[in-house]
Amino acid sequence: MRFFSDNAASACPEVMEALHAANHHDTAYDGDALSQALDAAFSDLFETKVKALWVSTGTAANSLALAALCPPYGGILCHRDAHIQNDECGAPEFYTNGAKLILGEGAGAKLSPETVESMLERMPDGVHWVQPHALSITNATEYGLAYTPDEVAALGAIAKAKKLGFHMDGARFANAVATLDCTPAAVTWKAGVDVLSFGFVKNGGMSAEALIFFGHEAEARATLYRRKRAGHLLSKGRYMAAQILAMLKDDVWLRNARASNSGAQRVAGAAGKRLVHPVEANELFLKVSQEEAAGLRAKGFDFYNWAPGEIRLVVSWDQREEDIDALAAAIEAL
Amino acid sequence: MRFFSDNAASACPEVMEALHAANHHDTAYDGDALSQALDAAFSDLFETKVKALWVSTGTAANSLALAALCPPYGGILCHRDAHIQNDECGAPEFYTNGAKLILGEGAGAKLSPETVESMLERMPDGVHWVQPHALSITNATEYGLAYTPDEVAALGAIAKAKKLGFHMDGARFANAVATLDCTPAAVTWKAGVDVLSFGFVKNGGMSAEALIFFGHEAEARATLYRRKRAGHLLSKGRYMAAQILAMLKDDVWLRNARASNSGAQRVAGAAGKRLVHPVEANELFLKVSQEEAAGLRAKGFDFYNWAPGEIRLVVSWDQREEDIDALAAAIEAL
Amino acid sequence: MRFFSDNAASACPEVMEALHAANHHDTAYDGDALSQALDAAFSDLFETKVKALWVSTGTAANSLALAALCPPYGGILCHRDAHIQNDECGAPEFYTNGAKLILGEGAGAKLSPETVESMLERMPDGVHWVQPHALSITNATEYGLAYTPDEVAALGAIAKAKKLGFHMDGARFANAVATLDCTPAAVTWKAGVDVLSFGFVKNGGMSAEALIFFGHEAEARATLYRRKRAGHLLSKGRYMAAQILAMLKDDVWLRNARASNSGAQRVAGAAGKRLVHPVEANELFLKVSQEEAAGLRAKGFDFYNWAPGEIRLVVSWDQREEDIDALAAAIEAL
Amino acid sequence: MRFFSDNAASACPEVMEALHAANHHDTAYDGDALSQALDAAFSDLFETKVKALWVSTGTAANSLALAALCPPYGGILCHRDAHIQNDECGAPEFYTNGAKLILGEGAGAKLSPETVESMLERMPDGVHWVQPHALSITNATEYGLAYTPDEVAALGAIAKAKKLGFHMDGARFANAVATLDCTPAAVTWKAGVDVLSFGFVKNGGMSAEALIFFGHEAEARATLYRRKRAGHLLSKGRYMAAQILAMLKDDVWLRNARASNSGAQRVAGAAGKRLVHPVEANELFLKVSQEEAAGLRAKGFDFYNWAPGEIRLVVSWDQREEDIDALAAAIEAL
Repeated sequence: MRFFSDNAASACPEVMEALHAANHHDTAYDGDALSQALDAAFSDLFETKVKALWVSTGTAANSLALAALCPPYGGILCHRDAHIQNDECGAPEFYTNGAKLILGEGAGAKLSPETVESMLERMPDGVHWVQPHALSITNATEYGLAYTPDEVAALGAIAKAKKLGFHMDGARFANAVATLDCTPAAVTWKAGVDVLSFGFVKNGGMSAEALIFFGHEAEARATLYRRKRAGHLLSKGRYMAAQILAMLKDDVWLRNARASNSGAQRVAGAAGKRLVHPVEANELFLKVSQEEAAGLRAKGFDFYNWAPGEIRLVVSWDQREEDIDALAAAIEAL
Repeated sequence: MRFFSDNAASACPEVMEALHAANHHDTAYDGDALSQALDAAFSDLFETKVKALWVSTGTAANSLALAALCPPYGGILCHRDAHIQNDECGAPEFYTNGAKLILGEGAGAKLSPETVESMLERMPDGVHWVQPHALSITNATEYGLAYTPDEVAALGAIAKAKKLGFHMDGARFANAVATLDCTPAAVTWKAGVDVLSFGFVKNGGMSAEALIFFGHEAEARATLYRRKRAGHLLSKGRYMAAQILAMLKDDVWLRNARASNSGAQRVAGAAGKRLVHPVEANELFLKVSQEEAAGLRAKGFDFYNWAPGEIRLVVSWDQREEDIDALAAAIEAL
Repeated sequence: MRFFSDNAASACPEVMEALHAANHHDTAYDGDALSQALDAAFSDLFETKVKALWVSTGTAANSLALAALCPPYGGILCHRDAHIQNDECGAPEFYTNGAKLILGEGAGAKLSPETVESMLERMPDGVHWVQPHALSITNATEYGLAYTPDEVAALGAIAKAKKLGFHMDGARFANAVATLDCTPAAVTWKAGVDVLSFGFVKNGGMSAEALIFFGHEAEARATLYRRKRAGHLLSKGRYMAAQILAMLKDDVWLRNARASNSGAQRVAGAAGKRLVHPVEANELFLKVSQEEAAGLRAKGFDFYNWAPGEIRLVVSWDQREEDIDALAAAIEAL
Repeated sequence: MRFFSDNAASACPEVMEALHAANHHDTAYDGDALSQALDAAFSDLFETKVKALWVSTGTAANSLALAALCPPYGGILCHRDAHIQNDECGAPEFYTNGAKLILGEGAGAKLSPETVESMLERMPDGVHWVQPHALSITNATEYGLAYTPDEVAALGAIAKAKKLGFHMDGARFANAVATLDCTPAAVTWKAGVDVLSFGFVKNGGMSAEALIFFGHEAEARATLYRRKRAGHLLSKGRYMAAQILAMLKDDVWLRNARASNSGAQRVAGAAGKRLVHPVEANELFLKVSQEEAAGLRAKGFDFYNWAPGEIRLVVSWDQREEDIDALAAAIEAL
């Protein structure tokens, strides 16, 4: 009963079927019909013309996005708990050729407009300090909170005013959209987002994420070179596109996200005051003593020790109903 | 009837089955049992203790290898027609943080010991010129020739004497071993190779290549960080390892390579004097007039216009017998 | 009456004389006798065999040092107020090819052993987070405090235990040694420092700083290439070496530092409770209202508005006695 | 009697005087009046509005220029014998974050329009190969030839048509202008040059070169950050600007270049058929046997062994008349 990470989840049936359907002799790289269909598919989804690229990981998606938005001598504003700061082994620095992440605070890994304004004020003008070129937020955040369209738009307005590229790390974008019950457009480009890392792997994909450019055609074109140069232009790209298209079709991405969100809500109901953050996506952070944690493990539950006295539980799209019920019961019984 | 590229081939049945077998809730990144089994599997194959990492592309494998062997201020000797020079959009420069490729000549994209010695002599000592730190060859070469164990060993001896790291781009390593009828060990570490990019994708894989370190444990460990930092540590790595293990089992990798090599021989027999290079792997380069090329295309054959008056044909592992026969017949009929 | 920065100071007479003495047709780059004399001169000063390189700026010295100690995928621990973090426009990131600065807190820009231990504890093991490879401190600090030999040694012990390279930014190393009244050796290699940026420009030089390697011969050799590659191997290096040797001779570097330190003490005596930090080198940070600051400026004093209600005054080696007296009097009169 | 390199020459009297005149307490970095005067001084010289930055070396100037004109994933066309390829230890790769130099042939290190066209034709379109973004030539070339304004303009026309940034390495720009007897404008921006590395050090400066942007204001602004980030923003920049302004005043730069060119002509007259290249600037390449070379050395002449049977002689601005005469006589006597 693994509640360790949605990275541990299986690939969903639609994805596996799509891989089979794509398994024939076809054109290499991204010249195949499936890869070529991505722009249109995402343009439909986002109700505007976008440019979409597949990549193998969220780290690659994020880093390519940041490299597109920030020069080597620039700074990227993000939360202190952002994945790009803490979980990518310096990939943003690698891809941007040395840009600097400027870290802000905020509960639940969320940046407020006030925080961003204040960060910008503390960055002196002139050549001695990297100048701000980009703002990056994660939605849903690393603590499972969702930025609403209004919250994103407030940040987007600052980004626009200060000429910052605005990136959204959407490793759990599906979970955010599912919980917000908004359109994908509302929480992205309509709110000022320039580039989105749209995650599929945590949500039932196997190995394909999408990088979406809203406008910024020159940057999107440059990213084709950066992707190749990073070794992320797979020679059999059709298997990548196939996964994504299969999850866009019939809103499988939303179905899967709703499943994991709903499982998380089920557990959240049982966790009560133990919750460290509100549960808005598929992650739960619980105050649990060392003994209690050991008890849960003894019952067969696997999870991450987040901090002293705190554990993280992640509900995946493929989590079995009975396992979720068992987990909820076990937590209630603590 | 695509003879365009082995990158266009399908994934072989063993790979597809392995993906299914791996499709369950499991540990993330490379913590799963399959990923952890790679070192042992390749150590068996190479008859020595190796460290093996999966990556998504040959470009990533090559670039990680070169970054492990050459500092940013160093030089990498390779052939003017090497894939790392011509087909990776500067990936080696990106991953090494700016090392310089030093280009040599040689028929069929092969470097001879004399050429390498002469390249080294022309590189003056001192800080004004990048100093040589690595040597990279491709086996089978970009023109479908195979370096024999002796030929590799002659280069390996130079590398050792000059303290150069020795990398082999084995995008078509299977084709080379199949044609050489030698052990994988004989043509790699026994001949002085330090790091091997072992290709699976062109040979029936879907999206997984292997990067093999012979010795060089510190560099292998550092490469774990570089891989993550490059966005190449897939969160569901088990699907990567599964592909590779499936192809190692029962020598599927050799079976597939023998199939494509043998198809290429069948066509080579028909091509006769049109051959620009000897055919030792699965690639053929043919002198063909523009009209003749058009005639072949009219008959339904797809291939690459390599140079004026020259075409490239690649036979893949999954090429149908009847298509190969038809191609041979069509070439004979020119 | 400029108390803006010691970067504004003139070059001292010994330096100007040395430039003249070096002004003849001689060998290029660092092949001249003066450049070749640096190792011996600094080995004498530090009472151990060192390797010394001239560079044009402290930023270059710091960044070359960090590149020598930290791989691209590593982390460098430093204070939040460190020059390398705030005043070099990302030079460490550029030279290291993207290493990450990990920021710690501490009064007066000083890192305590407890802080460093705690920073290290918060850095999880594994490939997802950059691993610590180096520790960098500034002596005297950006707020004019000096680390004592014991304080440095306590940090050095941690660095050694954790296998971190230990760098000291000594832009005002002379001021630190002068105030500590210790040997240069005591506060550097004897306390575990691996590489020192030894500043001369703020202290009466024109354009030459020294980069000192204690041991670490391989890194020192690699740095010769990195220096060239960074465009910092001046073709007429003798003018660089001449400046440094002139300031080492007869302890001009100490004489100048004592002059600026003593001037700062004179002003500190007048500043009393306005001092934000103890004055141990040549910098003063004073609590001063906007009106008071305006008053000082009206009297002809130039200085830096450091923060709301706080100004920075720097006394240079060439500051005139009467200007210092006038400043002290003006502050007392506030 | 050193004819080894103009890098070995002394600084001219005007430069030394200017350093003294600038030797007072003044503003730091490039905020001083001298640094601020550079734009106007060079705008006068070039008869158009330019942006001018000082840097310490030609390598830094060239690399900053190339970084301004070429993205990391781009290619820079240059001659196989270009200084940026052979004598900068990979600095262009470092500053551009990994762009690739594409090498062309041509007598005397000159690129012809035909060669450049042919190089461009051989660079396939698409993401697999770095795309051309810049063209760099050296004037005077590494073999002492000068591109005429017409020759530059022919290359400039290609650069414009192909949207390549056009850089001129003018380490010996003064020698080129002196021999061409043209305006600085004629051989630069009027001929399509975008950025010029204007050398002063080889021509009587001590440590200051100028980087000139014709138009390209955004790139010039970005270069201010890149310069700082590279550790090339000296804290006492007034000494840099002073050198340059002193050499611009009363055309000292032309006077010095004429002196060295004229000395080279004097020697060339004596060398006759031994000359490997026409002598148009201050460098001479002579066919000389090993014994003859030894004979010259025995007479006290110092020079560089360029290739088997070939030596390089460089006449500097400060070369004594009698030494030049002696050299000419010694060569005639061979």
